[in-house]
Amino acid sequence: MADRVGFIGLGAMGFPMAANLVAAGAEVIVSNRSSGPVDRLEREGARRAGSLTELVENSDVVITMLPDSADVADVLRGPGGIFSALRSGQLLIDMSTISPVVTRELASEAGAMGADFLDAPVSGGDVGAREGTLAIMVGGAAAALERARPLFDVMGASITHVGDVGAGQVVKAANQIVVATTLAAIGEALVLATHNGVTREHTLSVLGGGGANSRMLELKRTKLATQSYEPTFRATLQSKDLGIALASARESGVPLPLTAIVDQLYRVVESKGWGGLDHSVVVRAIELLAAERGTEESEESP
Amino acid sequence: MADRVGFIGLGAMGFPMAANLVAAGAEVIVSNRSSGPVDRLEREGARRAGSLTELVENSDVVITMLPDSADVADVLRGPGGIFSALRSGQLLIDMSTISPVVTRELASEAGAMGADFLDAPVSGGDVGAREGTLAIMVGGAAAALERARPLFDVMGASITHVGDVGAGQVVKAANQIVVATTLAAIGEALVLATHNGVTREHTLSVLGGGGANSRMLELKRTKLATQSYEPTFRATLQSKDLGIALASARESGVPLPLTAIVDQLYRVVESKGWGGLDHSVVVRAIELLAAERGTEESEESP
Repeated sequence: MADRVGFIGLGAMGFPMAANLVAAGAEVIVSNRSSGPVDRLEREGARRAGSLTELVENSDVVITMLPDSADVADVLRGPGGIFSALRSGQLLIDMSTISPVVTRELASEAGAMGADFLDAPVSGGDVGAREGTLAIMVGGAAAALERARPLFDVMGASITHVGDVGAGQVVKAANQIVVATTLAAIGEALVLATHNGVTREHTLSVLGGGGANSRMLELKRTKLATQSYEPTFRATLQSKDLGIALASARESGVPLPLTAIVDQLYRVVESKGWGGLDHSVVVRAIELLAAERGTEESEESP
Repeated sequence: MADRVGFIGLGAMGFPMAANLVAAGAEVIVSNRSSGPVDRLEREGARRAGSLTELVENSDVVITMLPDSADVADVLRGPGGIFSALRSGQLLIDMSTISPVVTRELASEAGAMGADFLDAPVSGGDVGAREGTLAIMVGGAAAALERARPLFDVMGASITHVGDVGAGQVVKAANQIVVATTLAAIGEALVLATHNGVTREHTLSVLGGGGANSRMLELKRTKLATQSYEPTFRATLQSKDLGIALASARESGVPLPLTAIVDQLYRVVESKGWGGLDHSVVVRAIELLAAERGTEESEESP
């Protein structure tokens, strides 16, 4: 890998992704809000950036992996941010999951400085990040993707060029619709079955054994069986992604009735204080709806 | 297989299931509304029943595989039907997908005549029926299931005893919730992506490559890519199954908000005359919602 890499955002996803680049022999300089992950990655061979401008000055390709649109915009546009030091010929790759609209604005600003921009959100979770088997959805110019490909090959198992800048985020939003709706559908199946005398385990076994099976069911089966929702992907992030999907849909005039309902179920999740749990906790929100029957005497119809 | 089998209902599912029993060496007597499938199965070694009573008299186990609750109830209770000739010690197995409530009633009536009853709906479609790889969800007494197991082993790859009589139908309804909702979720993902500049093929590729993948996506991917919906499982049957799920949910006081919306989308499917197409045509219903934008001038807000 000829390109030197600047990597910003060493969270649950970013840390293993950057670590894989270091392990693959890339020259990596890193920055993170908290210093713990930087310390650890420095011991694995990464260089610590004293500032974002130092990071940009010592990189050819800059990768961001941050929670939300505002974080990416701030790191790029903020005082002393990436844009303040960006050089012509550099390549920015945002691998966060953020708004396609914000993505297109940031790409346009980078382009005005002579830099290329790719949006390259991922799926596959922290396991995929650790194992370097992420699915990477890339929007932007083909030449920029070819430049980035050696890096993507380290971090991911499937790399799909889905269109122009923003297209990666669009298809990630589409992906998250299916992920969350599948979880909620499993929730409705479980609540119908358990309220009609069939156990969770039997239901999960049947769902997993036929046409209802899914990657989500496979990944979440233990959590669903034990009703313990230690996070691998937090509900608040799923909720954020649904917000991106619904905002994009509204902007493009597309009705998404199921996604709207699933988003409401995540409102239940957050109102219950379960946002820090795994996104599969949406099942518990559905169970809550069925469990809290009124105990008052029914009134006569008017 | 010591038990002689009576098999009623030689449709897209029933025919290959009965044919597999014949091929496995079972003594099978068959009945079907139309004679074509009976002729074909007779050539493969099955015996043709002149009447339902003749079928019952020459069977130890009677299997029904019919479209809906009313069909099963009619074949069992109707004049000259199964119940008119049922003997103590016989076993009725309904492998149709019907109402759990009707199932419990029929089982109770059979029990009063000294016969056992299993509900054993399946998933896996006509391919699973042909290949003998169906998932079979069994409700009823364990001893009756053990008696039926040699037959189930011929027809299915996974046999799950999920509870008492009716439990098989409950869990099948739960299964169908997930199947239909997964298809509709893929539809919303596709419509969001294609209205935002990402192709169907790219979207399907991304969905299939990560956490959004599902058995439905795998099975329907060609149909979704080509937008041709030749039926392997007709939308009208999916719609019927959602009706069973919603009726069971209402009866047991369980809210199913997603299932209710998906059911409404199948109302769109049927109102458009697409009920005979594959159940994945629900995707087209969602696309229709997004495509038919009003062309009138917007009015001022009041």
